[in-house]
Amino acid sequence: MTDAPRRRGAERTDAIMLTTLELGREIGYARLSIEAVAARAGVGKHTIYRRWSSKGALLLDSLLSLNESGLDYPDTGDIAADLRAQIYAAVDLLGGPPFGPLFQALVGEAQHDRQVAVTLNERFIAPQADKTVARLKAARDQGQVAPDFDLELAMAILSGPLYFQLLITQEPLTHEYVDRVLDALFAGLRPS
Amino acid sequence: MTDAPRRRGAERTDAIMLTTLELGREIGYARLSIEAVAARAGVGKHTIYRRWSSKGALLLDSLLSLNESGLDYPDTGDIAADLRAQIYAAVDLLGGPPFGPLFQALVGEAQHDRQVAVTLNERFIAPQADKTVARLKAARDQGQVAPDFDLELAMAILSGPLYFQLLITQEPLTHEYVDRVLDALFAGLRPS
Repeated sequence: MTDAPRRRGAERTDAIMLTTLELGREIGYARLSIEAVAARAGVGKHTIYRRWSSKGALLLDSLLSLNESGLDYPDTGDIAADLRAQIYAAVDLLGGPPFGPLFQALVGEAQHDRQVAVTLNERFIAPQADKTVARLKAARDQGQVAPDFDLELAMAILSGPLYFQLLITQEPLTHEYVDRVLDALFAGLRPS
Repeated sequence: MTDAPRRRGAERTDAIMLTTLELGREIGYARLSIEAVAARAGVGKHTIYRRWSSKGALLLDSLLSLNESGLDYPDTGDIAADLRAQIYAAVDLLGGPPFGPLFQALVGEAQHDRQVAVTLNERFIAPQADKTVARLKAARDQGQVAPDFDLELAMAILSGPLYFQLLITQEPLTHEYVDRVLDALFAGLRPS
């Protein structure tokens, strides 16, 4: 492939994902369909199906395309500050308006569509967990994290309370909530 | 009302909830309907709708009827053991077979049905949060929990990692996982 067709392909992919987000915000996840995205983006629906197997997979990629690099961990040398910055970015992207309701609907879909669940884990959760473990390992080497902290649990411990707020109580995921969760997790339940 | 009709009403309520669980296990949440429960239980569907506004509300009550007292906290004087015992019971009831998939589907439904979300919080999450806070307060008074631990967060911190496993990674919720989560939460991330 020469450069020009590849570039046109990438532009078309970007246009489809932008259309997905735009239409998703307008009509909501339940009414979103690959057919409707194709019609508005001016492409055939097979063009979309060649790349994405379901509207769940398409929406997930579209959401993540917004800010992938922003979900990397900074390394300022202060683990509490770096976790906070990364979680703020994740919460700003996926935990509130305008895209929070779409992400929430996607997780809802993952409860009865195995393929959406697998895609969510492969494309988002597992890479985030790897980044989290890497950042915490570096912090542990610098004595900023308890040496026996179970790193395999890091993602569940750090993000579990956020998903609880998003999916169960369905109350706003604010920066203040993130701060309180991090303070509690660093301190632990046991009296010092 | 004399005693006999009240007793017959309670028996009918129990029979409807048992039928709901039985049918839910057989055909899954997606295909479960109030009409199908009514037909199998031998009651009119209006009898069910008088008490439950949706299949989500009916299923939630049915699940909780299995083991409500088992979800109370013991108070042996050892907070870590008591939390563990209560979370084991909750995980045994709602986190695995045979009822785990139905509970998972119900939480999925709560992502697009506001009434199911409200019912889930009113009938299950809020009462559990109250019990958790009460047990932790008693533990704090006995010096078993850090004096500045943010009790309003207790439910999110303790159960968030369990919901993460149930809804996001969708891996088995074992007692061993519960133990690891509790150990990590008691110890905290910060080096001692």
